Amino acid sequence: MNVDYINPFLSAAVKVLQTTANISPRPGKPHLKNSREACGDISGIIGLTGEKSGSMAVSFSKDCLLKVTFNMLGEGGNDLTGRMADAVGEVTNMIAGDARAALSEKGHSFSVSIPSVVMGEAHTIKHICSGPTIVMPFETEAGPFFIETCFEP
Amino acid sequence: MNVDYINPFLSAAVKVLQTTANISPRPGKPHLKNSREACGDISGIIGLTGEKSGSMAVSFSKDCLLKVTFNMLGEGGNDLTGRMADAVGEVTNMIAGDARAALSEKGHSFSVSIPSVVMGEAHTIKHICSGPTIVMPFETEAGPFFIETCFEP
Repeated sequence: MNVDYINPFLSAAVKVLQTTANISPRPGKPHLKNSREACGDISGIIGLTGEKSGSMAVSFSKDCLLKVTFNMLGEGGNDLTGRMADAVGEVTNMIAGDARAALSEKGHSFSVSIPSVVMGEAHTIKHICSGPTIVMPFETEAGPFFIETCFEP
Repeated sequence: MNVDYINPFLSAAVKVLQTTANISPRPGKPHLKNSREACGDISGIIGLTGEKSGSMAVSFSKDCLLKVTFNMLGEGGNDLTGRMADAVGEVTNMIAGDARAALSEKGHSFSVSIPSVVMGEAHTIKHICSGPTIVMPFETEAGPFFIETCFEP
């Protein structure tokens, strides 16, 4: 695993959750993704192009996302509403943008697409790429979330 | 709706399904996406960057995808297995690549990311973008599939 392509996403996730939702995620150990690993109930997916083609997903459990959305928007509720999708889209965009800036500082040039948000209980994501998919787990007081990245070698 | 950004995807979908799976999809009328429109059981999502940022999703019902995968790989079965994810990834990649080439011929320059495949019954997708999301429905002998595109204005 090339930490040049991992640390920018770890740092970005911590920074973005802290600044937008006042949540301090605790990063776990990044690892290679198992083929059938479950992900979450709502995910933001964003494409990267440039030095290499790649993609990034941020997957939340429903409970974790309720807390994030409440803290971001001051809104509670039990359902994954349209505003929760927008919150995930914004977080996905900000994490990718922040990681992109950090990669650029190290000489790795990327562009990011617009985020797509997937809603569906216990969905799984597979990145179709010849490179390895890296999972970065995070714990929060409201439950876990995951970032996944995959780049062409 | 700007047909310059719709027709390349319509043509690419018909061509890719015909050449890879020997299926001739019948395109329906492209329309603006309703906010909570359901999509499918398995979707390929790919990001676009360049002249504008955007994203494209191809969403299949399980029945339609079983037929596509069987025709592509000569493999039957009832479950959305790993090979079906790879088939969706390949179809997504080929449609985006073919549409990208057609857009390029008209002077619109784009790069495409790697595709991510989402598996989860009756999931929905929301593209987080200030531009409209266009849905292109297709009918096949095995059921419907949809392409969605969204570009920043």
